[in-house]
Amino acid sequence: MSDQERPLDVAELQRRLLDFAVARDWGPYHTPKNLVAALSVEASELLEIFQWLTPEQAAAVMREPERAHRVEDEVADVLAYLLQFCTAVGVDPLAALAAKIERNELRFPVGRTPPLDGV
Amino acid sequence: MSDQERPLDVAELQRRLLDFAVARDWGPYHTPKNLVAALSVEASELLEIFQWLTPEQAAAVMREPERAHRVEDEVADVLAYLLQFCTAVGVDPLAALAAKIERNELRFPVGRTPPLDGV
Amino acid sequence: MSDQERPLDVAELQRRLLDFAVARDWGPYHTPKNLVAALSVEASELLEIFQWLTPEQAAAVMREPERAHRVEDEVADVLAYLLQFCTAVGVDPLAALAAKIERNELRFPVGRTPPLDGV
Amino acid sequence: MSDQERPLDVAELQRRLLDFAVARDWGPYHTPKNLVAALSVEASELLEIFQWLTPEQAAAVMREPERAHRVEDEVADVLAYLLQFCTAVGVDPLAALAAKIERNELRFPVGRTPPLDGV
Repeated sequence: MSDQERPLDVAELQRRLLDFAVARDWGPYHTPKNLVAALSVEASELLEIFQWLTPEQAAAVMREPERAHRVEDEVADVLAYLLQFCTAVGVDPLAALAAKIERNELRFPVGRTPPLDGV
Repeated sequence: MSDQERPLDVAELQRRLLDFAVARDWGPYHTPKNLVAALSVEASELLEIFQWLTPEQAAAVMREPERAHRVEDEVADVLAYLLQFCTAVGVDPLAALAAKIERNELRFPVGRTPPLDGV
Repeated sequence: MSDQERPLDVAELQRRLLDFAVARDWGPYHTPKNLVAALSVEASELLEIFQWLTPEQAAAVMREPERAHRVEDEVADVLAYLLQFCTAVGVDPLAALAAKIERNELRFPVGRTPPLDGV
Repeated sequence: MSDQERPLDVAELQRRLLDFAVARDWGPYHTPKNLVAALSVEASELLEIFQWLTPEQAAAVMREPERAHRVEDEVADVLAYLLQFCTAVGVDPLAALAAKIERNELRFPVGRTPPLDGV
């Protein structure tokens, strides 16, 4: 069942997520609107881990095993729903990000960009 | 500036995002707590595109060029903050997802898993 | 302890929430930034109840006692953090909403306002 | 048009929001599932104001007029969607919050409750 021997790859993970959902008859639930709601819910579950922490506690979050595991688990959930949404609507997430980085390099020129709290 | 000739790769995108932030002195803003708040905000911006759409309109979202561009742009933002968060806390997002899929294969056995609205 | 005999009032609930937090030494956690993160997390927990439901199932959510209780519980949490945030920053939530409704009456004139999925 | 002369009241604001939506034919969009998605989106827009601020900057947010206005505007939007959701599903938000405070007084006894980052 494990594909761990091969290097991990986004397209391969997308295929495994799709097979997983199809095998459990979850396809009808995985509409674009539902998947993006689920993505947003999982991003908030990741935020929940940090909501009462000071910046210092937050920076040390991975040193506490139980919290570290929750962080990895929620990262996985966010990525899972993001990839399933991309599969559902036919967006290539890596190409979308590469294109955005190039647009941002023009939009925020080095040396002429304000601090981030003023953007 | 473009790395488009080589196949896109998550680790490479993470390096470009880090270089981008460092070049603009945005590093101090990119704490784990701030990045996870930003991730959650971007996931909601993706949800906002869909909030008033019927399931049918949502399924056709990529056929309308302006909405399709917004979807790609927000997917890029969600992935950007997820990867920057992973860089900040030292989590490998693809490994976290692969591990989660394997746990879920045990947790939700094929043929013995309820419909998703009852999970 | 109960104030149920008197009609409920937003200012009174704000005072009870403040007393509650002070009595448990939670004041230092209740910064504006933390409270607004918590508000966002609780709004997502309310969304989570609905994420896989069809529009029809969602419309009937209060007919199922267990889901109805979760809905009431999450409504309470959203309102609690919204009111605590308003206390922390000194915003009057009812006045803010009344002012917004009046601005929106000008912004979206009756008879000349597009359907909401086009706004 | 203004009801400002009378003291503001949650039930009255709910009625005005309902009239506002009905007058613009927005009723069909205001399903429980859509309203809760919109609530979550607006809570994130409030969070967005704070995402890059230090705790100190966040505490001073109302001293800057432009940011103060955005905060009031987003508080109004969050409350508007919360109240419209409550109207749609038939939940009394003040009663739900009062009941939750009483449950929390039993769940988190004074003097025996851990710090909030450990709850």
